[in-house]
This record gives sequence, C-alpha cells and structure tokens, in this order.
Amino acid sequence: MANVSTPSAEAPPTAACLIIGEEILSGRTKDANLPHLAAKLGEIGIPLSEARVVPDDVAMIGETLRALAGRYTYVFTTGGIGPTHDDRTAEAVALAFGTVLERNADALAVLKTHYPDESWLNEARLKMTEIPVGASLIDNPVSKAPGFRIENVFVMAGVPTIFQAMLEGVLPTLAGGPPIVQRSVVTTLHEGDVSADLATIQATHPTVAIGSYPRWRPGADPALALVARGPDAAAVDAALEALVALAKAHGQAPKVE
Amino acid sequence: MANVSTPSAEAPPTAACLIIGEEILSGRTKDANLPHLAAKLGEIGIPLSEARVVPDDVAMIGETLRALAGRYTYVFTTGGIGPTHDDRTAEAVALAFGTVLERNADALAVLKTHYPDESWLNEARLKMTEIPVGASLIDNPVSKAPGFRIENVFVMAGVPTIFQAMLEGVLPTLAGGPPIVQRSVVTTLHEGDVSADLATIQATHPTVAIGSYPRWRPGADPALALVARGPDAAAVDAALEALVALAKAHGQAPKVE
Repeated sequence: MANVSTPSAEAPPTAACLIIGEEILSGRTKDANLPHLAAKLGEIGIPLSEARVVPDDVAMIGETLRALAGRYTYVFTTGGIGPTHDDRTAEAVALAFGTVLERNADALAVLKTHYPDESWLNEARLKMTEIPVGASLIDNPVSKAPGFRIENVFVMAGVPTIFQAMLEGVLPTLAGGPPIVQRSVVTTLHEGDVSADLATIQATHPTVAIGSYPRWRPGADPALALVARGPDAAAVDAALEALVALAKAHGQAPKVE
Repeated sequence: MANVSTPSAEAPPTAACLIIGEEILSGRTKDANLPHLAAKLGEIGIPLSEARVVPDDVAMIGETLRALAGRYTYVFTTGGIGPTHDDRTAEAVALAFGTVLERNADALAVLKTHYPDESWLNEARLKMTEIPVGASLIDNPVSKAPGFRIENVFVMAGVPTIFQAMLEGVLPTLAGGPPIVQRSVVTTLHEGDVSADLATIQATHPTVAIGSYPRWRPGADPALALVARGPDAAAVDAALEALVALAKAHGQAPKVE
C-alpha cells in the first residue's frame, strides 16, 4: 500500500528495523521487537517501511546496515550487543560507518557505578563498553550496558524488556509526524465478495491505506478484518464509515475496533 | 554465527523468507510464518539465512525478490496473493522474473471444481488464478486458491494455516541436507560470567554454532539458555556436554532441552 499519499507537503520520515540473531532465523525465538517498534513509531508518525533479519555475521550486518541507513530516515537494530562471542553488532556497525570501536568512558562509568565490585567487570563485560567512535549512548535502565546511536542508526538490545526500555529513551529524540491512526472493522465477510467495493473505497480515500486481512483458524469461522490506516484522523474515520456501510450492506453487524 | 563450517564438502543449501504485508510492518499482526518455516527447513537441513518484511508495493517486492533469489538456493514468500486490491505479490513476482501474468487453466479448474457456483467465481476471485507464465502451482488444501513456484521462489499465502498447508506440499520437493539439530541448556548463569568459556567451547566445536540467549522478564529471575546447533548430531551432543559441564562447574543443575 505504498501508493498512499499523505496530507503533508513534506515527505514523512521513514524507518527500518534490523533484527540481528541466529535465534530468530532458526525459529527458536519468536521476535517480539518488530511489532512493539512499529506500534510505538506509528504513535509518533513514523511508518516502518521495511524490516530485515540477519545472523550474527559482521559482513552481513554491515552490508545490510549500509543499505538501510542510506534509504530510510531512521534505522533501529535489535540484538547482538551482549558480552558473548556471538555478539558482533557493535563491530559490524563500526565497519559499516568506517569507524572503529573504542572503550567508551561514559559507558564504563555507567557500569562502574551500578556494579561497583571490580571483579564483576571482567573482559567480557568490558566488551559492552566498546562503542564505535562518534556514537552517542542510549540509556539502558534495565541491565545498564548501554545501546548507542551513530548517525541515523539506533543500536539496541535484543531482549524485549531491554529493547523496550531503550526505545522509550530514544522516541522523544526522533522527528516524527502526525500519529498514524488505525481503525478496524471485524466481519465474517469473504474477501472475494467485497474486493471490488474495497478497491472503490481505497480509490475514494487516497490518503488512507485500506487493508483486508482474513483469518482462518481450524474449528473457527473465517473472519475478515477491514482496516483503515493513515496519518489523517478525519480521513481514517471517513474511510472507516465507508467500511462499516459496506459490511452493513452485506447484512453484517460489524464490530468496530 | 556464519563462521560455522559444515561437515559436508559441498556447500549446503540456503534459504530466505520474504514476508509481504503492511499488517506486519504496522505491528497490527505478529508474523507466525517465519518461525514455522525456519523449524521445518531446519528439519530437512536447509538453514534460513535471511528474512525481510516489505509492504504490498510492487516495485519493492520485485526488487527484494531479485536480490534474494540471486543470493540463496530457495526463497519463500508469504502474503499478498489474495483477491483484494492490496494483494500485489503475483504481479511483483512476474515483474521480478521478466514475465507476465496469465489466467492459469489449472488454477481455474481447481477453483471451478471446489466452488461450482458460477456466481461465486467473480472477477476478484478470478484474480487468484492469474499466475506468472512459467510458474508451477502449489496446492492449497485449505482454501483452494493455489500458490506457485517460479525458478527458486515459492510464493505462498500469508494466513498461517494456509501457509503451513502449502509448505507441507513444498518441503518434499526441496533438496536438503542433514537435519539441523538444536539442543539447549537452561541455566540461571549470567552471560558475563561465562563468556570466555563459551568462546572456548565455540572454538573447540567449530562445526556447531554455540549461542547464548538471556531472558529478562519483569518479576522473574534472569535465565540464560545456552544452545548448540548444527547439522552434525554427534558434534552437537559433544558441544552440549561441554555446555552442561560449564554450568555444573558454576554450581548449576542445568535443565537440558
């Protein structure tokens, strides 16, 4: 639905998410950061335009970061900034931006303050203070080891509670737009019966993205969610009205969410 | 963990997943297809090397498909093959492979057999029989409208029950390798305390990928899963033993999964 025009004359900001980690690609861990990031960015008017998942491979992370950072206003990474051998993100980011890692004095101070026992701060944990030269730190109120920002890339933890806490600190620093509003009508319509009408509603409401999402679950009746989404709240409401009218015309008592 | 060598002399097959749909990028819908695909491919020895999520945009889908199809043995797409205006995947795939859509006689026959009422087969539903020239069909035992394969790309539905059913038909047609075995030790260790030892275990077991995945949940003690993963089951078992020994050396009674 990239053909949606926006009411603003200026191009709205865009964003991409780079999920780093073999545990996601192996299917062992289900990513929870993408939906959270998308929802939070939507609230401040920054649509998420693309996401990628790559393994803990320095060349692959670096190549992907260069591609995304050149294309989108903001890039958010998740994963690979811990103390173990498979945490390679900081190294890859430095490579992507033609810089090197240095032991960051502020990151070291944070860890020393919160973990005053000197034996705790071993080589592995010191690795978490190795930050690309030129980056600024992102606060980690959960486990203290910081993330960092370099140019338009925000490098954050993969563990969801830490990712979410870091993101809360980052959001107020971003230049957003009008919040992206999303409203849904849940029906038991069949997509094929309303497809032509949905295309007409899309054409009539060009600043709103009209989506149609069927749900098939074993043992349950198929459901169809019709979604109106966009940065112009009044236009979204108008499109929602059209979707409700469509459902009613098919004898439905649609549930608006 | 791309620096893991494999016991086979021949390069193992690789795969990528392309998730298509605004509903994933908006955070409205959590993707469930990537972990399922990853697990199923792992069972037949095809590691998933990369995943991307893009909106229902023809140019973006086409560009991404060309990049992935040129790089990996197999590409699996999910989403955008329904009857509505925002289902653009077939069109994008045709574009990416320099071909065009045609009304596919076999796809039409399938729909006519299962839905004999002629009024049901309207223009919207006929759109689901528009398949790129040169593609072969993928059976859809759930809702009948088929997916398709063109060259090394498998184009499948986004609805998880349908995606899973289509994949079951596709898996036996793929050339895989030895199953990728994964075993885990769940501990309450802290990553920073065992990082050096994990690096040593990784170096000692080069055909196995050693992963370390912390879990922080509010109100729960932090946990750390240590994972051994690879196509050589005996080597994975040996690495697992080393991980168990490491945990025991730190006074833990680790839980093996």
